[in-house]
Amino acid sequence: MKSLLDNINKAFENKSRLGIMSILSVNDSVSFVRLKELLGLSDGNLASHIRSLEEAGYLTTQKQFIGRRPNTSFSITEKGRKAFEEHIAALEALIRMS
Amino acid sequence: MKSLLDNINKAFENKSRLGIMSILSVNDSVSFVRLKELLGLSDGNLASHIRSLEEAGYLTTQKQFIGRRPNTSFSITEKGRKAFEEHIAALEALIRMS
Repeated sequence: MKSLLDNINKAFENKSRLGIMSILSVNDSVSFVRLKELLGLSDGNLASHIRSLEEAGYLTTQKQFIGRRPNTSFSITEKGRKAFEEHIAALEALIRMS
Repeated sequence: MKSLLDNINKAFENKSRLGIMSILSVNDSVSFVRLKELLGLSDGNLASHIRSLEEAGYLTTQKQFIGRRPNTSFSITEKGRKAFEEHIAALEALIRMS
């Protein structure tokens, strides 16, 4: 039977993952440091959420050097964008039942 | 430091609890059976989410008999309505960064 929760994506249920995807959906590329700052997460916590989103194919990692400093940044994939948009639509439908 | 996730309420992070609160926010009173049906949850799962929301003071339980059949229903509290509205505003701010 269809339920109101059917199209809510488990991968984006956690608020940190929702935040990561929201930020990546409106920026071509965002650094680890910047994501950490915007979301107020620890290194370990952010790394773990990034890993799960990457394993799901929702984001990609770029590693490069800026001068001598290593810099890691992330971008949303097409698959990630599509999944995120579907999730947001489901969320909006759920919270706007009125 | 302020983060984008500050006003997201942990109590409503889970999609089932978000669904329960959404439904209660637009209905004076909703039965256990109806919530179960709308959300596609098992008895145990729904009961557990209800309990945690009740413990937080976000909903109240009414038990009555309809004819000979016991009927349990739930209503949102003022505290629950306020907390839920704050959560939705924070969620909207997060997903509408664009």
